Amino acid sequence: MQQRSEETRARILESAIKLFSGRGFNAASVDDICAEAEISKGAFYHHFESKQALFLALLDGWLKTIDNAIEASKGKTAPETFMQMADAFPYIFETAGNHLPMFMEFWLQASRDEKIWQASIAPYHRYHKYFTSLIKKGVDEGSFVNVDPQIASRLIISAAMGLLLQSLLDPKGAKWEKVARESTTLLLNSLVKK
Amino acid sequence: MQQRSEETRARILESAIKLFSGRGFNAASVDDICAEAEISKGAFYHHFESKQALFLALLDGWLKTIDNAIEASKGKTAPETFMQMADAFPYIFETAGNHLPMFMEFWLQASRDEKIWQASIAPYHRYHKYFTSLIKKGVDEGSFVNVDPQIASRLIISAAMGLLLQSLLDPKGAKWEKVARESTTLLLNSLVKK
Repeated sequence: MQQRSEETRARILESAIKLFSGRGFNAASVDDICAEAEISKGAFYHHFESKQALFLALLDGWLKTIDNAIEASKGKTAPETFMQMADAFPYIFETAGNHLPMFMEFWLQASRDEKIWQASIAPYHRYHKYFTSLIKKGVDEGSFVNVDPQIASRLIISAAMGLLLQSLLDPKGAKWEKVARESTTLLLNSLVKK
Repeated sequence: MQQRSEETRARILESAIKLFSGRGFNAASVDDICAEAEISKGAFYHHFESKQALFLALLDGWLKTIDNAIEASKGKTAPETFMQMADAFPYIFETAGNHLPMFMEFWLQASRDEKIWQASIAPYHRYHKYFTSLIKKGVDEGSFVNVDPQIASRLIISAAMGLLLQSLLDPKGAKWEKVARESTTLLLNSLVKK
């Protein structure tokens, strides 16, 4: 039973990604998602209380990728951690893949819906805190030059967001994995004490 | 007559921004825009051949801000140009202001419509070329360290896009003008030869 329930949940998420990407969040109804996933409406509401809740579950899934990369870097030095992040980029690209429209929907919904806005903004605040303390650690341990950790953290998050957005908008415009790795090296070189 | 025609055009653009931001590009019809602007449908089609054409005109308007900043920096050294860009940021923020949803619509439409996609992507290619040659100039004139101009250009555009997006998503999350200026200084410090 447990296994079947998890399969149903996975199928709902998969169908939602497909429909939100193709038609948009507003245009895809719960009925559409049920039809695509071949489940009953009762099964849908057993797993998610609303289309919005389903949306937030998808967002959580995306963010897990980044959280895992952060988790995996515990106990490393600040410069090592940065390069590990850059190595996680190809995986994030791949996951993001063809889902740009859904990505856009997240932000569009966020700007129109207080609850989704809060859920979208919270991770940035978390990442900002994380990078600020990582850079502060680098400065304190003597591996980084004396920069303002707050500003360097903003710069890193901005660069990562912008890179992800560009790679999704224009997948063939550059070798984005290479750009991610080399941009990180460039940023890192500017932080590391010679 | 000429003046009245320009006023009509301006009123259409203004009404479109309001309705695209509030209801979304798809939900706002040409009829809605005409009603909001208090003009006839004939007057609308005199100025724009379609809702899509109007959309592209709005995009052009946004990009002018950035092109003007680039134009204004002709004849300056590479480091001077960078700081001038940072100084233009507050104005871009202000223009972008409360129009995040419309911004999102641009990208969402871009991902679904080949013509809008081309129009959205073209400026990035232009900016990439511009920054690549600006950084190459800095390297050649000896004011910048020996970086790969292509990679540094990608990093700068990514950081600018990410910063703009964050500032629009979370206007009260930071003093974004200050962040823009200090991030630019940080990036510039990593490029300038000591």
